Amino acid sequence: MYDVLIVGGGPAGISAAVYLQRFKRNIIVIAKDHGALGSTTHIENYYGFENPITGKELVEAGFAQARRLGVNIHENEEVLSINGSGPFNIKTNGGEYLTKTVLLTTGMNRPNLRVKGFTTLQGKGISFCGICDGFLYRNKKIGILGAGDFMAEELEVLRNFSNNLTVFTNGESLSVSTHEYPVVTEPLVELLGVDSLTGVKTQAKTYDLDALFIAAGTPSASDFAVRMGAFVNQKNEIEVDPNFSTNIAGLYAAGDCIGGLLQISKAVSDGAQAALAINKYLKTITS
Amino acid sequence: MYDVLIVGGGPAGISAAVYLQRFKRNIIVIAKDHGALGSTTHIENYYGFENPITGKELVEAGFAQARRLGVNIHENEEVLSINGSGPFNIKTNGGEYLTKTVLLTTGMNRPNLRVKGFTTLQGKGISFCGICDGFLYRNKKIGILGAGDFMAEELEVLRNFSNNLTVFTNGESLSVSTHEYPVVTEPLVELLGVDSLTGVKTQAKTYDLDALFIAAGTPSASDFAVRMGAFVNQKNEIEVDPNFSTNIAGLYAAGDCIGGLLQISKAVSDGAQAALAINKYLKTITS
Repeated sequence: MYDVLIVGGGPAGISAAVYLQRFKRNIIVIAKDHGALGSTTHIENYYGFENPITGKELVEAGFAQARRLGVNIHENEEVLSINGSGPFNIKTNGGEYLTKTVLLTTGMNRPNLRVKGFTTLQGKGISFCGICDGFLYRNKKIGILGAGDFMAEELEVLRNFSNNLTVFTNGESLSVSTHEYPVVTEPLVELLGVDSLTGVKTQAKTYDLDALFIAAGTPSASDFAVRMGAFVNQKNEIEVDPNFSTNIAGLYAAGDCIGGLLQISKAVSDGAQAALAINKYLKTITS
Repeated sequence: MYDVLIVGGGPAGISAAVYLQRFKRNIIVIAKDHGALGSTTHIENYYGFENPITGKELVEAGFAQARRLGVNIHENEEVLSINGSGPFNIKTNGGEYLTKTVLLTTGMNRPNLRVKGFTTLQGKGISFCGICDGFLYRNKKIGILGAGDFMAEELEVLRNFSNNLTVFTNGESLSVSTHEYPVVTEPLVELLGVDSLTGVKTQAKTYDLDALFIAAGTPSASDFAVRMGAFVNQKNEIEVDPNFSTNIAGLYAAGDCIGGLLQISKAVSDGAQAALAINKYLKTITS
């Protein structure tokens, strides 16, 4: 059982890890990749570096810094689901973990689907959470949007509610099995419906649906948050209190995924402050 | 006329300077010394450095980073007074400057005077601001606590209100002229008075006073803030809004002097966020 599992290995996650490790907490960092920072080539506004550095250099320096202090970082591992409510059960593409608290630091949440009808039909047949909403669509016609592990995870959940499932990859190539379920790879051009979703359209064809579950790409922090019942604002940013706690006890978020200034310095500061708050929280639940 | 004058060359000040310089603002940084960070020997929790660094190394890297971008930094220069309200007039031991905005980043405010009676008599004859309160003590018996430039500056102000002035250095050796005014170098052991200050006591003697003005050491950010009418809380931290603005238009503060987590990362983040807010403010006053 970990004290803290940190999802994300960018500035917020590693900053938090460094503090928590020094507090002698039993922690683990799950870092899918170098994130948005990894592709930044010229950073000159993060304090303390005389010469410009690349995002890759900074991320790797962060990993090295944390590892020098003994932080356990699982690179190239992707969190697929978070369940429970203290302890939390985390499933990744590499294993399963139990932890008392979770800190989400996966960076900016991916932009919404840019398909006509998406914005107006959210919550009206468009869902981001099979566990939350699957039951509403028992034995109905369900679409799942996605092409990778995240979609496969959602598919496993939704199979419990209906057998009338179709996977829409929206132009992506499928990287996982969909069992017996049909797959549509054509990009979506429109989501249909007025008061609620009635179907989706590709260039070639229209598909009747009662619900479309979005599980494209990698789950973002806000995807996890929504699934766990944590509040997310209209900009898809996770809502936290001044202690970086969501409304779920033990679930914290820091860095770009909570909005505000999208800068390294702010993420680093968030991480440090979240670490202090988590450390304090752990004292209350272990006493 | 500068757009921004930054008081302090630590993480908050230099972080702000880097952003403002990149916004092509006409700025200057007045840095007295390396501050509290300068004497820190082992920093391993500031994100991005694999190996521990010293505070001196970090401060100097920050100076080099800012200068590489063209930031004008006056090292070893001390701000003595800030007057006006946009433009602000800044007096240092090296010159005078006019600026549209001021950012205070002078680090943690020095602890209060540890002399019996100090806490209870604040605001009751103990003042931190000659310009604010001197008039209340016209022709009264006034003490000034301090031994350097800051005290001399306060003395110049208070001479306008009374000729019955005594300088108390509280054990420090005097480094400036006090003109004709008497000087007491013995440390204070007690401040006397119940409802208001009636005098001060050294080991050897008691001195009757109507007011004691504190101008010891170097003026801290909160000293400037108080003098300018900005709000300071009970912990002597400058109160700022989410834009790092004090209640005085154009006067900003960031880093340790506004309280919160006293860590490099938080100061750096504050500085970046203050810079963005100041840049936005400058657009409103120059349009």
